[in-house]
Amino acid sequence: MESFDLVIRNGTVATASDIMQCDVGIKDGKVAMLGRGLPPGREEIDASGKLVLPGGVDAHCHLDQPMEEGLKMADDFRSGTISAACGGTTTVIPFAAQAKGGSLRAAVEDYHRRADGKAVIDYAFHMIVSDPSEEVLKNELPQLVREGYTSFKIYMTYDDLKLNDRQILDLLALARREGALVMVHAENADCIGWLTEQLEEAGLTAPKYHAHSRPMMVEREATHRAIALSELVDVPILIVHVSGREAIEQIRWAHGHGLRIHAETCPQYLVLTADHLDDGYHGAKCICSPPPRDKANQQYVWDGLASGLFTVFSSDHAPFRYEDPQGKKPGGKEVPFRYIPNGTPGLETRMPILFSEGVGRGRIDLNRFVALTATDPAKMYGLYPRKGTIAIGSDADIAIWDPHRQVTVRNSMLHHDVDYTPYEGMSLTGWPVLTLSRGEIVWRDGEVLGTPGRGQFLPCGLPDPARPKVQIPG
Amino acid sequence: MESFDLVIRNGTVATASDIMQCDVGIKDGKVAMLGRGLPPGREEIDASGKLVLPGGVDAHCHLDQPMEEGLKMADDFRSGTISAACGGTTTVIPFAAQAKGGSLRAAVEDYHRRADGKAVIDYAFHMIVSDPSEEVLKNELPQLVREGYTSFKIYMTYDDLKLNDRQILDLLALARREGALVMVHAENADCIGWLTEQLEEAGLTAPKYHAHSRPMMVEREATHRAIALSELVDVPILIVHVSGREAIEQIRWAHGHGLRIHAETCPQYLVLTADHLDDGYHGAKCICSPPPRDKANQQYVWDGLASGLFTVFSSDHAPFRYEDPQGKKPGGKEVPFRYIPNGTPGLETRMPILFSEGVGRGRIDLNRFVALTATDPAKMYGLYPRKGTIAIGSDADIAIWDPHRQVTVRNSMLHHDVDYTPYEGMSLTGWPVLTLSRGEIVWRDGEVLGTPGRGQFLPCGLPDPARPKVQIPG
Amino acid sequence: MESFDLVIRNGTVATASDIMQCDVGIKDGKVAMLGRGLPPGREEIDASGKLVLPGGVDAHCHLDQPMEEGLKMADDFRSGTISAACGGTTTVIPFAAQAKGGSLRAAVEDYHRRADGKAVIDYAFHMIVSDPSEEVLKNELPQLVREGYTSFKIYMTYDDLKLNDRQILDLLALARREGALVMVHAENADCIGWLTEQLEEAGLTAPKYHAHSRPMMVEREATHRAIALSELVDVPILIVHVSGREAIEQIRWAHGHGLRIHAETCPQYLVLTADHLDDGYHGAKCICSPPPRDKANQQYVWDGLASGLFTVFSSDHAPFRYEDPQGKKPGGKEVPFRYIPNGTPGLETRMPILFSEGVGRGRIDLNRFVALTATDPAKMYGLYPRKGTIAIGSDADIAIWDPHRQVTVRNSMLHHDVDYTPYEGMSLTGWPVLTLSRGEIVWRDGEVLGTPGRGQFLPCGLPDPARPKVQIPG
Amino acid sequence: MESFDLVIRNGTVATASDIMQCDVGIKDGKVAMLGRGLPPGREEIDASGKLVLPGGVDAHCHLDQPMEEGLKMADDFRSGTISAACGGTTTVIPFAAQAKGGSLRAAVEDYHRRADGKAVIDYAFHMIVSDPSEEVLKNELPQLVREGYTSFKIYMTYDDLKLNDRQILDLLALARREGALVMVHAENADCIGWLTEQLEEAGLTAPKYHAHSRPMMVEREATHRAIALSELVDVPILIVHVSGREAIEQIRWAHGHGLRIHAETCPQYLVLTADHLDDGYHGAKCICSPPPRDKANQQYVWDGLASGLFTVFSSDHAPFRYEDPQGKKPGGKEVPFRYIPNGTPGLETRMPILFSEGVGRGRIDLNRFVALTATDPAKMYGLYPRKGTIAIGSDADIAIWDPHRQVTVRNSMLHHDVDYTPYEGMSLTGWPVLTLSRGEIVWRDGEVLGTPGRGQFLPCGLPDPARPKVQIPG
Repeated sequence: MESFDLVIRNGTVATASDIMQCDVGIKDGKVAMLGRGLPPGREEIDASGKLVLPGGVDAHCHLDQPMEEGLKMADDFRSGTISAACGGTTTVIPFAAQAKGGSLRAAVEDYHRRADGKAVIDYAFHMIVSDPSEEVLKNELPQLVREGYTSFKIYMTYDDLKLNDRQILDLLALARREGALVMVHAENADCIGWLTEQLEEAGLTAPKYHAHSRPMMVEREATHRAIALSELVDVPILIVHVSGREAIEQIRWAHGHGLRIHAETCPQYLVLTADHLDDGYHGAKCICSPPPRDKANQQYVWDGLASGLFTVFSSDHAPFRYEDPQGKKPGGKEVPFRYIPNGTPGLETRMPILFSEGVGRGRIDLNRFVALTATDPAKMYGLYPRKGTIAIGSDADIAIWDPHRQVTVRNSMLHHDVDYTPYEGMSLTGWPVLTLSRGEIVWRDGEVLGTPGRGQFLPCGLPDPARPKVQIPG
Repeated sequence: MESFDLVIRNGTVATASDIMQCDVGIKDGKVAMLGRGLPPGREEIDASGKLVLPGGVDAHCHLDQPMEEGLKMADDFRSGTISAACGGTTTVIPFAAQAKGGSLRAAVEDYHRRADGKAVIDYAFHMIVSDPSEEVLKNELPQLVREGYTSFKIYMTYDDLKLNDRQILDLLALARREGALVMVHAENADCIGWLTEQLEEAGLTAPKYHAHSRPMMVEREATHRAIALSELVDVPILIVHVSGREAIEQIRWAHGHGLRIHAETCPQYLVLTADHLDDGYHGAKCICSPPPRDKANQQYVWDGLASGLFTVFSSDHAPFRYEDPQGKKPGGKEVPFRYIPNGTPGLETRMPILFSEGVGRGRIDLNRFVALTATDPAKMYGLYPRKGTIAIGSDADIAIWDPHRQVTVRNSMLHHDVDYTPYEGMSLTGWPVLTLSRGEIVWRDGEVLGTPGRGQFLPCGLPDPARPKVQIPG
Repeated sequence: MESFDLVIRNGTVATASDIMQCDVGIKDGKVAMLGRGLPPGREEIDASGKLVLPGGVDAHCHLDQPMEEGLKMADDFRSGTISAACGGTTTVIPFAAQAKGGSLRAAVEDYHRRADGKAVIDYAFHMIVSDPSEEVLKNELPQLVREGYTSFKIYMTYDDLKLNDRQILDLLALARREGALVMVHAENADCIGWLTEQLEEAGLTAPKYHAHSRPMMVEREATHRAIALSELVDVPILIVHVSGREAIEQIRWAHGHGLRIHAETCPQYLVLTADHLDDGYHGAKCICSPPPRDKANQQYVWDGLASGLFTVFSSDHAPFRYEDPQGKKPGGKEVPFRYIPNGTPGLETRMPILFSEGVGRGRIDLNRFVALTATDPAKMYGLYPRKGTIAIGSDADIAIWDPHRQVTVRNSMLHHDVDYTPYEGMSLTGWPVLTLSRGEIVWRDGEVLGTPGRGQFLPCGLPDPARPKVQIPG
Repeated sequence: MESFDLVIRNGTVATASDIMQCDVGIKDGKVAMLGRGLPPGREEIDASGKLVLPGGVDAHCHLDQPMEEGLKMADDFRSGTISAACGGTTTVIPFAAQAKGGSLRAAVEDYHRRADGKAVIDYAFHMIVSDPSEEVLKNELPQLVREGYTSFKIYMTYDDLKLNDRQILDLLALARREGALVMVHAENADCIGWLTEQLEEAGLTAPKYHAHSRPMMVEREATHRAIALSELVDVPILIVHVSGREAIEQIRWAHGHGLRIHAETCPQYLVLTADHLDDGYHGAKCICSPPPRDKANQQYVWDGLASGLFTVFSSDHAPFRYEDPQGKKPGGKEVPFRYIPNGTPGLETRMPILFSEGVGRGRIDLNRFVALTATDPAKMYGLYPRKGTIAIGSDADIAIWDPHRQVTVRNSMLHHDVDYTPYEGMSLTGWPVLTLSRGEIVWRDGEVLGTPGRGQFLPCGLPDPARPKVQIPG
């Protein structure tokens, strides 16, 4: 029996289904053995009183994504992956976004260039398809799927991204043929545009009116439509960043009719409300789409997390600095809400918020926490079993959590390149104290140890929902 | 590093969340180590090409339960646990049933006597409370919960068992105080009685009319009522043996309202229909309550298994011999359906049916199979982590499955003491070839190796749904 | 062309479907002619600027109903029918209530004695069946139905009245055979009893806790159950005094499944809330069952009135004096809520409240007002076309309304024998200024003109919902 | 008292709420008096044993509507209104359709020219808005509404007609401002286009595939979307030609949320199924959109008629001859379903089908028949009280029905200019034997008596759903 490179000793190991007291033996960057009293490793970590959890998979985040003229994301793959790692996440899946009229492959290649040499943890790519030209449908997209880019996002809103139903059907049919998974941003573009115009005509352009321009029915309608399109083509889809009751009811309806609709939600829908947008121009910090709703809707989202309606919990990290002419104040000015770049930062706080508010308050159990933040996203996007769990043969992507650590969130302690966090001042209990990526310590006790560039690109296998479920060994 | 009593080598190990290629080292009846290339054990099993799964937990079965005058269950703890073991199950939870006017504790003690010295695998007890007297509510039941009998079943039908809503509320309130879990048989007694009378007056007494006497609305109504009572007391319940669409819709409604309603279903609702009762008196073999419905309802049940609406999959094994004056022909005669003892046998076929029809046909994945048949029932009833998984420190209750084995079900190959199986002639793919209980082989290649009496009684911890979810180590 | 006894001239006549400017010619107590410029009558009424509406049919009210020891209803047929007439109602249908163990026919006969010589307007009887003995089921009830007592009410709560599901099924089957209509008071008795006990144990016995003892789920559960029983027997029923969202959703669900579930609501669910019970012991004045809910639920009830979910709008007048040892202070004392007789008075205010809050505020139109208060109840209970409309050949039961009259409700202006009204101080617009019963003026300009005893008993035809709908003339 | 031009004697008069035995006195084309034993009229009709019903208002039919190149509707205002009159209808509301890029006012003017001098009964116009240009939104449409064109239809499908959601919102907002009513054809254009292409690629172009190209979910999706848009703008809409369960469930959902969604259905959804399209090329005769569904869906539509979910029952008469190069065989050829003009004829059979299958079979009562075919459409579109009822002062538009007349439907007996009827051979009981328009007999005993050109254009008042409901006389 060989010796280990590293042994994590005496911790409480949790997977998406189990909790056990045992050591974890790591060799060649992989989990090699689970048991008690393992033989010594070259390196040892004492995890007594700590939780040993799979490193998180943040399956929805935006890093260094090319923006329209004048705007720039605050985080690149360096700062973004460091921030993620410090929050217990060991895999990120940002988006390679096609420009209207542009090549999808070129977007992927450009995005590789942006990632190369910068990432501290491993990463895969979703694609964003904004222009399903014949070239994209016939050649680029099928080939990219086969090369390991097996999921792509489509938008039902945003002028530069939105697709019409016909284009969506073509893409769903392609996804069905190729086994890819389609992620859907479900909001009705026309409703938003129309409401925005009404608000602007009435002079209501402060950040808080962003929420008025995207009421729940706008999300509900698009969710119902996305479900119908998925039903028509008979292919699973995943609805991203679901914000509250009305969309949830549509998804539950779909489940009751045997439809394969998957769903994701994010921290902002658990702890923010539309009131956070009502703080003068500071409200711009919490502008994201769909907007946070209210307390009652937070409860609906929690119920959906507990009951299994949601299977993915992501950050939707979209980093724009507040005091920045390329960020929330375009051109250095306080602009009408329509021109404020959408998004909130949250890579690093994603898991601590769910841990503290969810596990710590008994709303979900620890297994569900692991499932939502790591295992299910890894399965959903074809990264399992390499990522998302602590199992024999899996990458030793592990976060060690101190479940009792009291933290008051301050932006100054976070590692992203954004100048604010929406969660400033929030009191949380529990925080990762050490993060391993493929057996290497990338973050420990406040110190970033991972070297930019050590993170590897991960070609994805076929997403679980799109694969035949028969898993009987050869 | 100590040596192992037994090593299972080269299998595909699955838990409720993971699948991994690795060896399993067993010591002192427990899973001691997971890894590849483990040191040799005193004994070795080659599991190449096989699945290594947690032994099943059959959380709903009836063994040697005292019956009304003249009737007798065909299986005692010996034949019942052997049959279970041969079907990959390593824990059973039958019922200690209080008689009206009788003592609950006496029922439990009597049931221990029936189990003692007979069981081949481990067992826990649910209780059946048919008479919530003051003594039961104030003394017996709270004490029994504290002693490890932490779940009890109540009936909304059957004259000798049924409780009224007031009694149910008292029991739910007790369950809430003590942390016990209440299982509910949800059918409306009055409707069944009334319909039975109408049918009898019309001379319609053949076995097939059993299904007419218990239409879906009868189950739906009681399910809605049970949900309302649970909501009133704010305590989780589990609805047993859900048969189809109408009850499922009520449960889904409850989930959408944040209510903690758990649900179980059984093989008979997946592969039988009411047509199986329409075979002259042979239909008596498939008489159970609720009755099987139709093909469309089977699909609703499958959807519920896949979507997570159900968390427990049990046999509801209720063994009565067909050609038996103490069984399906009371007094040796073909009697009106009202007098035919309810129930179908299924301990041994439970897991193979779900494996073949579910995993084999891609309706559920392997993790969900493990969750439904082993892990979730163990958690539901306070037996986890001792039972229900393959994890460090858990009992080495393991079934090794040949996923490719073709089996045509014949009653002659089964090990229960019933003279028929409802699944006679059914073609299945996949069957357990070896079963371990606490590290001991109790069934291998057609041979029963476990000795009656080796099975141990398992006091249950508090059921998971009733426990505070906060699981942060001290 | 004969001359008229009375002509109402120049009014705006409304029926459940039409509004027209015309005169109404009355002869022999019936509507003889509609047209403009009718020939003169012996008597004339100028209705310029007024509404000429069918007199109301109050299909749910309690008058001089024998109560348990020590309690007494404040209104008999004299004061009750006078109060009704002064509020624009020309027919009442109170209840002849069987006592447990008593004869139903005896109850009817007794009730006739109570009505004889007292009523100012016409009346029919519903029955209350509290003891469906064989005699009742086989003889009394079928015969009474054939004699014109074609509707009966059953209770799912109140110890002295409630029936079990089996009894309800027997009664529903009888109703189906005989063409009678069953009215259901849907609240779960066991839940109420249990909650009441919990509240009493906690010392919470003030009137406001009445609402806590009967939360919406208690009504929802019984409503669902009543629907299921109706579905089983395939016979229409009417759910009385529906209070809010949860019961309404069940009824809407039933309609979506093609079930014939009719529904009634009352003024107290439109303008009172549970807060009205929270006024020290004065809250006793608003104790009724189900209790009023909250503002949001009022809106649900309005939506149900507007959309046609409700077809009957009644008072559920149940008159108990507040300062009365036989009323709200039994034995002269302030007693725990459990002992306070249930009910609020409302015969006279029923139509003005719906007119002012409904028609006056544009929530319902005038035709719907007529349908809800007069035409549909008359059809529902087999009194149409004699009652409930202004049509050729119908009884000239007509109320002339001043739609602009401003009224501040004071108990002193009402004609019941109760010493309070729950609507004290409410500002209403619109009030009847003259009421005709069979062409005779019984109320005009503040003066009661009808003589007690002039009111006639009305045997009912088969209720509309229970009759075959084919209405093709012979 | 003046004498009458015409008296209808001894009939059974029905309105949307009442049924009465009485004579109807008619003077100057209006209903002047209702009563028994009216003085003689200059003309008399004996209606003994007959039903005297309001003439129907067919609120959805297409007559002489300009079509795309090469196609032509078979009925103009002459044949169309004669056919309507012979089926008991006295008002039609066809569509003045704007062409893309064209003027709406020009369309209305053109349509007047088409109607002038031809109509036998009175008519109003809906508009079809296919191009909501600034000129249309700012000037034409508001002015036209004020001139009595108070309802307009929008399409969510058909390339030459469909609007996007933004355009729909603009039109809904205009409708809200002006008090107009928007009718919505709810099918998802992109889904239909995509499915049609798939079917064509597979060579599936026979008429029956029309139904495959427009499955229920396509209608459900658009219905949900239309409801959401209506909710956003807070303005009532009417969904036309609802075909079955899935759309109905969306509408019922809307009612449960207090939304003002009105709905229409048509005879083809009651008595045809998709199987009628499966008859070789003859299936083209039954091609309409949405397509007829199946038997189970017919029942859902009947339930919706009975429960009040639907308030309008129209023909959606769209007349194309089968053997006609300008009709169902464009260019004289059997073409793929995509090129077959949509629509079925039905002006004349609309009321007899609903009478026979609805009233005759007890599915709806006679009042509901009148409401659905006459009164409610008249109210819905601002023609009440002039049209749609038999009330004092209303136009004497009356159909006298022989409720016992047995008719086997043959196209040869119908008066449209189409060469087929989808209802060929259907056995019906009940048919109008005489039709009056403004007191003039236009159809009697098989003879058309009305002169083309006698029909008048009816400017519409504001539709009822869009008006404030307060109807209190000045």
